[in-house]
Amino acid sequence: MSKPSVAPASGTRDFLPADMQRRLDAFRIVRAAFEQHGFLPFDTPCFERLETLTGKYGDEGEKLIFKILKRGEALDRAEDGELADMALRYDLTVPTMRAVTANRHKLPRIFKRYQMAPVWRADRPGKGRFREFYQCDVDIVGSPSTLADIEVLSAMTAAIAGLSFTGYEIRLNSRKVLKGMMTAYDVPEALHGGAVTALDKLDKIGIDKLPEEFATQGLPPEVATPLVADLARADFAALLADKLAALPTGAAGLAEVAEIVGALGDRLVGGSIRFDPLLARGLDYYTGAIFEFVTPTYGGSIAGGGRYDGLTKLFGGKEEPVCGGSLGIERILMLTEQATTEVAGPTAYVTVWDADARTTALDLVRAIRAAGASAEVDLVGGKIGGQMKLAAERHCRFALIQGPDDRAAGVVQVKALGTGEQTAVPLAEVPGFLVSGT
Amino acid sequence: MSKPSVAPASGTRDFLPADMQRRLDAFRIVRAAFEQHGFLPFDTPCFERLETLTGKYGDEGEKLIFKILKRGEALDRAEDGELADMALRYDLTVPTMRAVTANRHKLPRIFKRYQMAPVWRADRPGKGRFREFYQCDVDIVGSPSTLADIEVLSAMTAAIAGLSFTGYEIRLNSRKVLKGMMTAYDVPEALHGGAVTALDKLDKIGIDKLPEEFATQGLPPEVATPLVADLARADFAALLADKLAALPTGAAGLAEVAEIVGALGDRLVGGSIRFDPLLARGLDYYTGAIFEFVTPTYGGSIAGGGRYDGLTKLFGGKEEPVCGGSLGIERILMLTEQATTEVAGPTAYVTVWDADARTTALDLVRAIRAAGASAEVDLVGGKIGGQMKLAAERHCRFALIQGPDDRAAGVVQVKALGTGEQTAVPLAEVPGFLVSGT
Repeated sequence: MSKPSVAPASGTRDFLPADMQRRLDAFRIVRAAFEQHGFLPFDTPCFERLETLTGKYGDEGEKLIFKILKRGEALDRAEDGELADMALRYDLTVPTMRAVTANRHKLPRIFKRYQMAPVWRADRPGKGRFREFYQCDVDIVGSPSTLADIEVLSAMTAAIAGLSFTGYEIRLNSRKVLKGMMTAYDVPEALHGGAVTALDKLDKIGIDKLPEEFATQGLPPEVATPLVADLARADFAALLADKLAALPTGAAGLAEVAEIVGALGDRLVGGSIRFDPLLARGLDYYTGAIFEFVTPTYGGSIAGGGRYDGLTKLFGGKEEPVCGGSLGIERILMLTEQATTEVAGPTAYVTVWDADARTTALDLVRAIRAAGASAEVDLVGGKIGGQMKLAAERHCRFALIQGPDDRAAGVVQVKALGTGEQTAVPLAEVPGFLVSGT
Repeated sequence: MSKPSVAPASGTRDFLPADMQRRLDAFRIVRAAFEQHGFLPFDTPCFERLETLTGKYGDEGEKLIFKILKRGEALDRAEDGELADMALRYDLTVPTMRAVTANRHKLPRIFKRYQMAPVWRADRPGKGRFREFYQCDVDIVGSPSTLADIEVLSAMTAAIAGLSFTGYEIRLNSRKVLKGMMTAYDVPEALHGGAVTALDKLDKIGIDKLPEEFATQGLPPEVATPLVADLARADFAALLADKLAALPTGAAGLAEVAEIVGALGDRLVGGSIRFDPLLARGLDYYTGAIFEFVTPTYGGSIAGGGRYDGLTKLFGGKEEPVCGGSLGIERILMLTEQATTEVAGPTAYVTVWDADARTTALDLVRAIRAAGASAEVDLVGGKIGGQMKLAAERHCRFALIQGPDDRAAGVVQVKALGTGEQTAVPLAEVPGFLVSGT
């Protein structure tokens, strides 16, 4: 029999202790930032009934959903093509909208939630692209105020600052600005969606290919040509502002964008924010402010979001204002990866002199833990020299030794493994010594 | 069109903020206990290649594995019955053994790991039985010492004590004791496994049905009858000890059990431990100490585990000593459920007097957060009375108000929502006031 493969499934990862400690630290930081902003934890299951997810992510997205095979009789009865009844969540937004709708009466009028959880996509795995990855989302349900958009961005930027990530730029726009723009450039209403889809590709295809993309979306050349000409101008933002002054929706969008930039502009740590009238964002459901966090060092975005009033209607809920954002924590972790990834071991390693010393050793680890420090007992035995070596390998800060003479004297030798400094500490004072030295 | 269902998938749950806060607290406590014992975090993906999980859990277990449907061309090409290529993890042990084998050279000789993560089983949902639930596992790879078994139990009991759960009893046995027992009662070697399987059902079926179960497993009556007769005796443990004295394996098992009971017996908070020669545990792979945490108030067990030397061979790794345990955190959470489940809201609710006060309000929340407290800004507007009501609904501890007179005086009214006490605090001192009062 050939050896079984020990690789994790394609596009997924095992996380060794050094990686996990780093990830847990990051999650702690993000959680603290979100909670400081008054967002509350709210979780949904990892899988959903299939119909909860289908029809929500467009054709391309839908292909990437991992579906769960029916079981037992249900599978035997399954017709062709109806082999699955559930699916792993593809993002956190859609399941949250389902769960908010289901529990609306139990939630406060203004509901601020966060979630840090894995999502799954059957994407082709590649560098920095995984099939299982975490997202960190914040959302505010129930407030149409621009203050809500500001608070979402404030929580996200606080999390990023906490992670010591710098050098990002927030590109900010509003679907209202885009709507005004379409009106100002005489794009027929029926083609607004298509024009936004084309604009969303601008980053990838460049302005030269934009006329082609507009044509694909059905924009007549007499509409597309002057629009593309103006979009290419360096002063397009100012030009657009003039054109939108007389258009209520467009002007409202500009005012919102201005308020958001004003509230955050000077206060970001390690980042900046600017109005970008060309930012479109792919998904249909946005209705107001939209944003993307980009970095010059990394092609893609590290975060994104916006206002999607009315998404609660998806699941038969009443129409409500909602805005939110999603932090691509995996990308941030990748970009902030440190050169050294050393495990942080427990504080104390309690050696065991001989079999008779086991009880004393166990009592000592117990006392150290009770005092609030971490400790482990040697599990290998043998010579003390070997146990000391093990203590260092395990990244412990102190090795504790009690030989027969120490025992007679009621002391423990506490050796700091970094400096080699050794102190004889009375047995009862060891926990206090370690905690104060921690 | 009928309203779409908003229910989560069968057997899964949405967690509202009060539930989530309680769960996160519990996870924090368990994590701290495990880390204090020198266990390091080590995570595997939520799904595995199908062959990693098949053939590991017995026929009954295997039926409960959620499989993931193949995608695209792989599905088109799939033969009947080979529709899935991956599966959601059924427990944490098997994926960990795969990941340990894959990464053995990067891990320390003695590897102590913990994981707190969801697993999925297609069980029939019922009270306290879910299809998605968390397990909290600790394992020690590489040590055959009884100290390792003691440390596993010590970490688990520390976690349970941290969760303020009391009234459990650890039933402890050893597969070596069971082996000695089989030898002492002349059970043919080939029937040892079957006899253990029968014994494992004792709790469910009772001693009266045991002869039948032994017969099913092929034990001849002349072997089964005297064994059942002795098993029914109140002094069976003492009787067995006498019989095992002359049998090396059995005697070694008894000595291990005695050392574990001795090390933990007097030191458990809210629990007890006792040798139970009738404890068998279902799974084949155990080789040494085995244990189960039972509670009189709850039929089933809240934790279990044991020593399973050699399980690393499953994935072609070298044979290594391993012991570990799994905490049923969902059951513990259910049993410790509190009468009140009130959300803990942020510390401060900053009201907004009028549109002109938005910038000041945002600056104030920012300053409070920078000082380390949590704060949120009103997102509704309108009369201050309404905003105050909202602050209370959101479980904030203080509401902050700055009317025109306060503004002129450079102060903020800080109202404690519990007592109604109101203090005028100079604007710059508000963060300090809140932090010291937190």
